[in-house]
Amino acid sequence: MITVIVFGNGNMAWHLCNAFNYCKNVSVVQQYHHKKQDNKFKDFQIPFTNKLQHLKKADFYILAVSDDSIANLSAGLPVFEGIVLHTSGAVSIDALHKKNRNGVFYPLQTLSKGRKIDYTEIPICLEAQNEEDLTLIKELAGTITNNPYQINSEQRRTLHLAAVFANNFVNHLYEIAYTVCEKEGIDSSLLEALILETAKKAIDIMPANAQTGPAKRRDQETMKKHLKKLEGKQELIYKTISASILDTYGRKKL
Amino acid sequence: MITVIVFGNGNMAWHLCNAFNYCKNVSVVQQYHHKKQDNKFKDFQIPFTNKLQHLKKADFYILAVSDDSIANLSAGLPVFEGIVLHTSGAVSIDALHKKNRNGVFYPLQTLSKGRKIDYTEIPICLEAQNEEDLTLIKELAGTITNNPYQINSEQRRTLHLAAVFANNFVNHLYEIAYTVCEKEGIDSSLLEALILETAKKAIDIMPANAQTGPAKRRDQETMKKHLKKLEGKQELIYKTISASILDTYGRKKL
Repeated sequence: MITVIVFGNGNMAWHLCNAFNYCKNVSVVQQYHHKKQDNKFKDFQIPFTNKLQHLKKADFYILAVSDDSIANLSAGLPVFEGIVLHTSGAVSIDALHKKNRNGVFYPLQTLSKGRKIDYTEIPICLEAQNEEDLTLIKELAGTITNNPYQINSEQRRTLHLAAVFANNFVNHLYEIAYTVCEKEGIDSSLLEALILETAKKAIDIMPANAQTGPAKRRDQETMKKHLKKLEGKQELIYKTISASILDTYGRKKL
Repeated sequence: MITVIVFGNGNMAWHLCNAFNYCKNVSVVQQYHHKKQDNKFKDFQIPFTNKLQHLKKADFYILAVSDDSIANLSAGLPVFEGIVLHTSGAVSIDALHKKNRNGVFYPLQTLSKGRKIDYTEIPICLEAQNEEDLTLIKELAGTITNNPYQINSEQRRTLHLAAVFANNFVNHLYEIAYTVCEKEGIDSSLLEALILETAKKAIDIMPANAQTGPAKRRDQETMKKHLKKLEGKQELIYKTISASILDTYGRKKL
């Protein structure tokens, strides 16, 4: 049995508790958060503490906390036999205090409490300070996913940047598309089939082969008409991305 | 039996031929293109012509041609009893020559020849010049989709603009995300689960409820680190979209 303590009260902590709850050979023996436990964790029936001095022994101490809190929290921990992991895409393994064995356990996915997800498909990006620890962390990741993946802190930062484009920024474009529709009384759910097929197609044939649209075909007339309907930040985003598409495919054409 | 002639040789024409081929009560009696027929249409075994004077009689003449060609092609057609439709998101119904009954048949989807798609899910946006024609065009759309949707030319232009954000621009962000990974030797397929879940989540809970990331939480430190890895158009896109997210959620926060 692998024993785990989950630190944190947010989306990542929730999904770790949830995912490990389905694993026969992992037990979340405790959840720690410095404040009150979020109600959404109650169903897991994991013993909760908000006092570091009450922490139990475990194989892994997973700090599923905000980027800013990782260094301080790890420095405030007792010395353990187990391994202390953080779950951030943007923070180096070196942020963790040296008094304990350290590693990184970064699930590359957008996570919201309560949302059902197929955990076996999520790439979990792993980093350790030696081979022995890496083997143990891989074993832990393998209880959740079919895609454990070893990368270093610099690569993880790059992957996190890519994820900002593929998730955060893409979602903001969805929001603009919905807003554009709603502003003129058009049912935004009309976009749903398009959004899903756009994602599937990019995955199947690679984004570079899936690009279409007015900017790709240098259709100035349509772009002008579109820009008349936009203003402010939306207009700026339209111009900036169109220019980037023109740039990307212009060069290929010549 | 509804009879249809499909004009054009591209992705839209291909998918119309393909979709109608599955319909028991629609027959594509002819395909027209001013040049040679694309080989990918051969399997449909639809009689092909490149001469307007050889066109047969049909209930619908669907101009699945480029936006620029719609006006000229419709002006060059004989006078028919049937209805002439175009399939463009960006072109007004008025571009079609008045000598024939006219309408619009705009499937809101990204279409590539040969790619399998569930046609029943695609919203087909319809426009006609009178109720009688609209009923006929709706009947035609109903043979393909469960989502026929009547909108006027102005609304269709807005929807097309929204689709540029949700499809063309989103795909370009995918391409940047892939490029960022590949530049540092990271397997871009790691992004696939994230891309798919981002799309599904936005559809399920609305994009405004799904927004996360450094810009949303005003994490200047992470944004600075990300910007160090970017240059040129990618840097500009990062800054522009982040500013728009800050703007959108900043105001809500205050």
